[in-house]
Amino acid sequence: MTISPQVRYGGDYNPEQWPREVWDADHAAFGLAGITTLTVGVFAWAHLQPAEDRYDFTTLDAIVDRAATEGRDVVLATPSGAMPPWLARAHPDACRVDFEGRRHVYGQRHNHCPSSPAFRRLSVELAGRLAERYGDHPAVVAWHVGNEYGGACYCNLCAAEFRAWLRARYGTLDRLNDAWNTTFWSHTFTDWDEIQPPNALSEHWRGPNHTAFQGITLDYRRFMSDALLGGFVAEKAAIRAHVPDTPVTTNLMGLYQPVDYHRWAEHLDLATWDNYPPEDPSPVRTAARMALAHGAMRGLRGGEPFWVMEQTPSTTASRDVNAVKRPGVLGLWTWQAVAHGADATLFFQMRHSRGACEKYHGAVLDHAGRTDTRVFREVAELGAQLATLGDATLGARTPARVALLLDWDSWWALEMSDGPNRNVRYLDVLGAYHRALWAMNALVDVVPVTAALDAYDVVVAPALHMVKGDLAARLAAVVERGGTLLTTALSGRVDEDDNAFLADVPGPLRDLLGIRVEETDAQQPDVANPVALTLGRPGATAVHDARHVFEVVVPDPDTTVLATYTADFYAGAPAVTSARHGDGEAWYVATLLDDRGVARVVRHVLDRHGLVGPHASDDGVEVVDRVAPDGTRHRFVLHHGTAPITVTSQVSGVDVLTGREVRAGDPLELDPAAVLVLRT
Amino acid sequence: MTISPQVRYGGDYNPEQWPREVWDADHAAFGLAGITTLTVGVFAWAHLQPAEDRYDFTTLDAIVDRAATEGRDVVLATPSGAMPPWLARAHPDACRVDFEGRRHVYGQRHNHCPSSPAFRRLSVELAGRLAERYGDHPAVVAWHVGNEYGGACYCNLCAAEFRAWLRARYGTLDRLNDAWNTTFWSHTFTDWDEIQPPNALSEHWRGPNHTAFQGITLDYRRFMSDALLGGFVAEKAAIRAHVPDTPVTTNLMGLYQPVDYHRWAEHLDLATWDNYPPEDPSPVRTAARMALAHGAMRGLRGGEPFWVMEQTPSTTASRDVNAVKRPGVLGLWTWQAVAHGADATLFFQMRHSRGACEKYHGAVLDHAGRTDTRVFREVAELGAQLATLGDATLGARTPARVALLLDWDSWWALEMSDGPNRNVRYLDVLGAYHRALWAMNALVDVVPVTAALDAYDVVVAPALHMVKGDLAARLAAVVERGGTLLTTALSGRVDEDDNAFLADVPGPLRDLLGIRVEETDAQQPDVANPVALTLGRPGATAVHDARHVFEVVVPDPDTTVLATYTADFYAGAPAVTSARHGDGEAWYVATLLDDRGVARVVRHVLDRHGLVGPHASDDGVEVVDRVAPDGTRHRFVLHHGTAPITVTSQVSGVDVLTGREVRAGDPLELDPAAVLVLRT
Amino acid sequence: MTISPQVRYGGDYNPEQWPREVWDADHAAFGLAGITTLTVGVFAWAHLQPAEDRYDFTTLDAIVDRAATEGRDVVLATPSGAMPPWLARAHPDACRVDFEGRRHVYGQRHNHCPSSPAFRRLSVELAGRLAERYGDHPAVVAWHVGNEYGGACYCNLCAAEFRAWLRARYGTLDRLNDAWNTTFWSHTFTDWDEIQPPNALSEHWRGPNHTAFQGITLDYRRFMSDALLGGFVAEKAAIRAHVPDTPVTTNLMGLYQPVDYHRWAEHLDLATWDNYPPEDPSPVRTAARMALAHGAMRGLRGGEPFWVMEQTPSTTASRDVNAVKRPGVLGLWTWQAVAHGADATLFFQMRHSRGACEKYHGAVLDHAGRTDTRVFREVAELGAQLATLGDATLGARTPARVALLLDWDSWWALEMSDGPNRNVRYLDVLGAYHRALWAMNALVDVVPVTAALDAYDVVVAPALHMVKGDLAARLAAVVERGGTLLTTALSGRVDEDDNAFLADVPGPLRDLLGIRVEETDAQQPDVANPVALTLGRPGATAVHDARHVFEVVVPDPDTTVLATYTADFYAGAPAVTSARHGDGEAWYVATLLDDRGVARVVRHVLDRHGLVGPHASDDGVEVVDRVAPDGTRHRFVLHHGTAPITVTSQVSGVDVLTGREVRAGDPLELDPAAVLVLRT
Repeated sequence: MTISPQVRYGGDYNPEQWPREVWDADHAAFGLAGITTLTVGVFAWAHLQPAEDRYDFTTLDAIVDRAATEGRDVVLATPSGAMPPWLARAHPDACRVDFEGRRHVYGQRHNHCPSSPAFRRLSVELAGRLAERYGDHPAVVAWHVGNEYGGACYCNLCAAEFRAWLRARYGTLDRLNDAWNTTFWSHTFTDWDEIQPPNALSEHWRGPNHTAFQGITLDYRRFMSDALLGGFVAEKAAIRAHVPDTPVTTNLMGLYQPVDYHRWAEHLDLATWDNYPPEDPSPVRTAARMALAHGAMRGLRGGEPFWVMEQTPSTTASRDVNAVKRPGVLGLWTWQAVAHGADATLFFQMRHSRGACEKYHGAVLDHAGRTDTRVFREVAELGAQLATLGDATLGARTPARVALLLDWDSWWALEMSDGPNRNVRYLDVLGAYHRALWAMNALVDVVPVTAALDAYDVVVAPALHMVKGDLAARLAAVVERGGTLLTTALSGRVDEDDNAFLADVPGPLRDLLGIRVEETDAQQPDVANPVALTLGRPGATAVHDARHVFEVVVPDPDTTVLATYTADFYAGAPAVTSARHGDGEAWYVATLLDDRGVARVVRHVLDRHGLVGPHASDDGVEVVDRVAPDGTRHRFVLHHGTAPITVTSQVSGVDVLTGREVRAGDPLELDPAAVLVLRT
Repeated sequence: MTISPQVRYGGDYNPEQWPREVWDADHAAFGLAGITTLTVGVFAWAHLQPAEDRYDFTTLDAIVDRAATEGRDVVLATPSGAMPPWLARAHPDACRVDFEGRRHVYGQRHNHCPSSPAFRRLSVELAGRLAERYGDHPAVVAWHVGNEYGGACYCNLCAAEFRAWLRARYGTLDRLNDAWNTTFWSHTFTDWDEIQPPNALSEHWRGPNHTAFQGITLDYRRFMSDALLGGFVAEKAAIRAHVPDTPVTTNLMGLYQPVDYHRWAEHLDLATWDNYPPEDPSPVRTAARMALAHGAMRGLRGGEPFWVMEQTPSTTASRDVNAVKRPGVLGLWTWQAVAHGADATLFFQMRHSRGACEKYHGAVLDHAGRTDTRVFREVAELGAQLATLGDATLGARTPARVALLLDWDSWWALEMSDGPNRNVRYLDVLGAYHRALWAMNALVDVVPVTAALDAYDVVVAPALHMVKGDLAARLAAVVERGGTLLTTALSGRVDEDDNAFLADVPGPLRDLLGIRVEETDAQQPDVANPVALTLGRPGATAVHDARHVFEVVVPDPDTTVLATYTADFYAGAPAVTSARHGDGEAWYVATLLDDRGVARVVRHVLDRHGLVGPHASDDGVEVVDRVAPDGTRHRFVLHHGTAPITVTSQVSGVDVLTGREVRAGDPLELDPAAVLVLRT
Repeated sequence: MTISPQVRYGGDYNPEQWPREVWDADHAAFGLAGITTLTVGVFAWAHLQPAEDRYDFTTLDAIVDRAATEGRDVVLATPSGAMPPWLARAHPDACRVDFEGRRHVYGQRHNHCPSSPAFRRLSVELAGRLAERYGDHPAVVAWHVGNEYGGACYCNLCAAEFRAWLRARYGTLDRLNDAWNTTFWSHTFTDWDEIQPPNALSEHWRGPNHTAFQGITLDYRRFMSDALLGGFVAEKAAIRAHVPDTPVTTNLMGLYQPVDYHRWAEHLDLATWDNYPPEDPSPVRTAARMALAHGAMRGLRGGEPFWVMEQTPSTTASRDVNAVKRPGVLGLWTWQAVAHGADATLFFQMRHSRGACEKYHGAVLDHAGRTDTRVFREVAELGAQLATLGDATLGARTPARVALLLDWDSWWALEMSDGPNRNVRYLDVLGAYHRALWAMNALVDVVPVTAALDAYDVVVAPALHMVKGDLAARLAAVVERGGTLLTTALSGRVDEDDNAFLADVPGPLRDLLGIRVEETDAQQPDVANPVALTLGRPGATAVHDARHVFEVVVPDPDTTVLATYTADFYAGAPAVTSARHGDGEAWYVATLLDDRGVARVVRHVLDRHGLVGPHASDDGVEVVDRVAPDGTRHRFVLHHGTAPITVTSQVSGVDVLTGREVRAGDPLELDPAAVLVLRT
């Protein structure tokens, strides 16, 4: 029995926690729900290796074989996301020392020390044994190493590894002292061993974002991201020794600050992530936030399709308040994932846990194993729809001409900066610009600052705090060939070491943007400066609130001033500017505008390139196109609003889910959570 | 000189802190105030045993003898509530390791490690010597061991004791692994020594209520409650070696979460507690809260009278804001205690401390020793009133037919649960239902879930998260014999190990309640779902806000739906149900209703059994009956409101405090803080 | 090249962080800005002593010589404000153990253990070498030891030093046990070594202000203040061995709670401090706050002029939100400093740091080194003005007849007290009374409680919690000779050991004030009790809100009641009283009145002595007089409001800054930030 190619559907499955009779009920229910793929083995270390010198694959054999018998594919996990008790007891250094400098003992998960030789040896050994045993198993379609890598360790082993990492990066202490500007506060290091991990016992106060030396902390974050990656890479190598082709990946967490996924991307065979959007009372904002994360994950590997490895069918458990997904939302969000490039949409979890901290986390099957619940019905309906879609979108790409730059270094640097304003959060700024692009249904790639920008007409780089490598030149090239760069306040401030450019702000972007920032004012969140923004037809001026930071800009003579502050001592000074270079334009927004203000700027920029998308004025209606390898184009129309809306179809096509034909100009009545997948 | 039997009156007295001339002034003032009983020796360790090998009872001899000479009784404390400096220095393991994993050094109080052999040995030795010396002293009427036991230790000695406790509880690791559901996150323990106390260095984050393994944390709380109890039991045994009959107790803290007083109850000869109600701007809510705590303490020993060991005559010092008790409040609250079963009402403290952290805590005598203050006058008036009452209420019982279930396990389990809603606090739910019963002046016993329920017509079990032992059967028996069970959202979720029932929610209560809970929605505190509740005369529907959790209930065919949600996707679904079994009823409130909604449900349930009490509509008027061993009945009428109110007396009797006769039907003018003690 | 005597102008300068070509640009810019004085060597340890056995003064030689060549004076710092990495590695005990009991490792600054022998030895040795080398350098006009001493250490070395300090203070354990009231909670110490530093592992919970033993914590603060001072004194002695006369000082932090600057004052040759006022949305309140701090610093050394060692030319970086100084504010605040007694006004910093946590802290020169910025222009204009003023105010004094008492012990004691109200902050109370005095342009000296009070007509002592030494007698003497004492709620509560006076409150002030406080009520911040205050012409009653604490006062028969509470059970009780003794008066305000209420009381008290100053009704207009040694009087008129105001000049004189003549009765149009320096 085999399942036809389609968007993978299923999720985390831990039958080792249940007696065999439950397995029968599980697979019967999976059949009803159209489940094709099961992720097994996550957190299974204790039963795979009950003691350091003993392995036991009996149960896993049965799980994998049973899945195969039922015609389901398996994503096989290495269990290194949670160590067994015996390991911590035998090797205390496998546990972390935390930011407060405390050595932890056994407990929780996702908390091994990445520098622990024992943990590395044992996790790699087990990964190898799993690969040896299951590498050829026909059911195994992917390998999933560890789980949700994150956090940080500050132990002496990590300190030693950090020093080695620094030696490799800087070569000499002179270069390191220069990078960290150690002359400040007498920090000149004269021996590598003087260097300490930056935490609450050394450079930090008030937590991870308050450091005396941003350069040290920045490097420790880079190091720790690499150190965690080291564990992944080592396990992957052990798998590759037995498994030549099957993709090896792990489940990332989207816009997760502690780990720089751009440093990880080249080591993953597949971009895969867990979609748990942060709480937001607005479903439309939530949809935009997920679109941003989907874009970021698709951007990891140059626009390749990605997998959603986890989403909840109903509710989370880990939040203070855990709402259930409203009817239809599961389908809506799943189709949004597919629209943005997902070739798999998997759940955490297939069956409710019995005890411990996830016992109330939603699942396909509840504690009673019912298949007559609302949740199960929605899961099954979605399963049927995905089967109907079949393989039509597998491998499809997003034909975006807009790039949004995402940069972990800027994220880190901006938020650990002393001054000008701790209330500015990188994702808030990035999100505001993304939300404007998304609301206009412009197709957007969310790419690292190292990405090739040749394919884009518009590059949006909000809060591009750090400008490193040849980025300034590549941005200039976009403008030179007629494109548009749009960047904002707090950009162009620091180099790769987080040292200020010894030049006018915004440093290497100064000439391109045709401005210099003379001062940066900051105000409390309740203070707004109304900005008068003139765009579009002559005289079209509207006023938008600006908050948090207010750069006082001096424009070059040829630079166009599109908006000015109307209050405070810099009233009349430029708040939005545009510098023209040939056919290209370089825009600068010198403050944090409210959403409507951002939307006007973004729409103007998109308009110039004809990139405002369909239904840009239909609130909550998301439209995304995907182009399959054979050129087939699917247009996804998703309604995230909470009230029905009627829009006019802008294309002709057939809704794959219902077979209904739609013609351009037809009215489309969209209920909340409506989904159309139009083959156009 | 002896004092006639009466409600004991007096309190904590530390003359060792003062020169002898102050003692004379003290006793003279005590005489003016009608003080009968002094608690001495609390925190006296340092002067009773100035060095490990030296004891000195000279001062205590003088204190006790002087009290006897003055005709006052003594409650003699062992001093183990605070260790002397020499002990901590000689035995560092007597100090605790805290939740953060830090070994404390000498300081504060109430912070010995319960597993420290040295502390145990020394505290027991001293208790024995005190018993030997004062056991026969005629003034000593009770023994008070330690002080306000609480908190927790996480040291290695406690870890070892925890493992021993677990061995005794579970026998095998297999049983323990099953109870803790350790297959989840690879926690299978293969050696007892792998088990760690659950704290910030192991299973916890964000504090004591955030744990990866609820089962482990739950057992640690049970263990720590038992470990602290172990110290009490050991000291008590040392006393009993010399003192055959005098009651031995300690001062509990009412609704104090860290210690399960139900596990302690059988070891106390008397239920005794300290009454410091939490701050609440509403005096009526405060009165209800104290009534709940009085009930819980009376419930420890099957309804026996209890002692209030501490209350402040005027003000606390330990709060951020310490208001003085308004005029009359001291008397009002004291009489409330007597109404609910107190046979002693004692103060902390008799004289203001001179220095350190309680120097501003109120006292009968201020720093100047004045007896012409408002506070002293009120103390003296109250003393005279208690003398007037005499022995009339000693040993009296509360003739309640309503039981309210209180369960530390449910309290712990509910508040450490990940999901559905961290904003739900057990005492808030319990308190809301208690407040409704209290406002209707229904007499209520607050009992453990192990209590016999035969005597009750109505059993109210709010947030009965954990259902353990034969509780479900006993609740069914209440209904079967025609009684009413009333329970709420978040009940019937977990078994004794905090594992979910693998069945429909609410597990073992499902058939009795005639419902199943299919989903549990949760919302932020500002979100209300209006619930339409139809009760009483046909068509009597009113709408009440519900918040926090919203269970989507599927009723059995015979179950009556009394209320429905009116908003969100579950609008129209049941919010209150009642299942009939013979003459009995089992009610379920599937959400957290506002106070008016709870009151309507509770009144309806009470009405069926004729249990709505007197003055149920007179806001702030509390009425409590006590029946003495000889059958005499006293009705306490207390006015907690801040405005005068005139009510109609519903009984005839004589106000013991004034001698005034009251006839049924008479108007009673009740000023704020009015108290009547009617012999009926 | 020499510069004429004038108010010193310049600031912190760290050219060692820059290449030599930048030095040229720096000095050129300094010339444009009228910079006279550079503070060099702060945090320079690592390059002055690159290893324990190696010193290198090459760069410092060049810096100092270059300054001299350019005709600028140098304030030479010892670098002990930040230790180099090699020191921490070789001597781990130089790092602190923090309040949580954690040993820190290398990082940050201002964090050496004051009891570390290694740190002491090395810092003193380096100070001596610097003094030896630069003591005779003609450019060096002052020595600046360390930097912003503060914080606390809790290590074992400090514990030992604390015990030695206690032995010196108390002599015997009996005296110590009495001072700390250790009988309470069994804390009687029987060996000095039992004493532990009071922190989170011993006597504290919820942070530094929650202690079980206030006496212990109070003494630890005194000890730690002295211990930090010990480092200063030792370095100063090493300097004095080579430098007989040049003043030696360090930069204090104004109203900085952790260090008792009154304990330091006698060891400083100059009062010098860093002026970074706390954020306040009101510029007028901010001005008052700075005036208070200037007064406190001037009060350190009996009214001698002081130096402002640091202020920012534009923006801070260390706050959550860092606003730039509005146009004119730099000048306004600088002139305010001069008005209050500054003979130097220096900046932190001359050039923007390149990296680390101060890279966004404002500077005279920005990262690009521009001299055409608004900030530089304002700096240069101010430089020119100061040059115009020349030496006219050097050494001038403030002819104040009002004393405001400032006492670190009361500040500490009040805020660590358990009860009555944690929301009362000492500086809020002090600030409210100071603001009233300031708004009336009364000249005020802010003096320690040990200061001679003979020169003052009015002594204001808000929240004088602790009354120690002969203070009560000296206050009585003020009243006896016809002066006025004004004090408030929470005064006269404790003695020098923080033990309550065993007497009526307010203890030793009771007879002078003619009242006793019987009770102290406290309420949440949202609760106000309206106080009816009758002052001035007959029948002039107005009502003012009182909050937080409400003392119930019993007045002596002759005491005048000027205000009463109008609500709660103490309605009608006195809230403001005045007791007459001969021609003198002793006022008591028994609660915390709102600003208008305080202002009425203060104005009335000032009026009696003719001390209401000029422009007392002109909001935001500050007027300060300084009298030079030669008797020349300068009147500073400063406008802190944000709108222009026209006032009537009350004196005749010449504005030194513009040469404009002003006659009494002339209208003066004052723009925001206007400054006049009238030679009268």
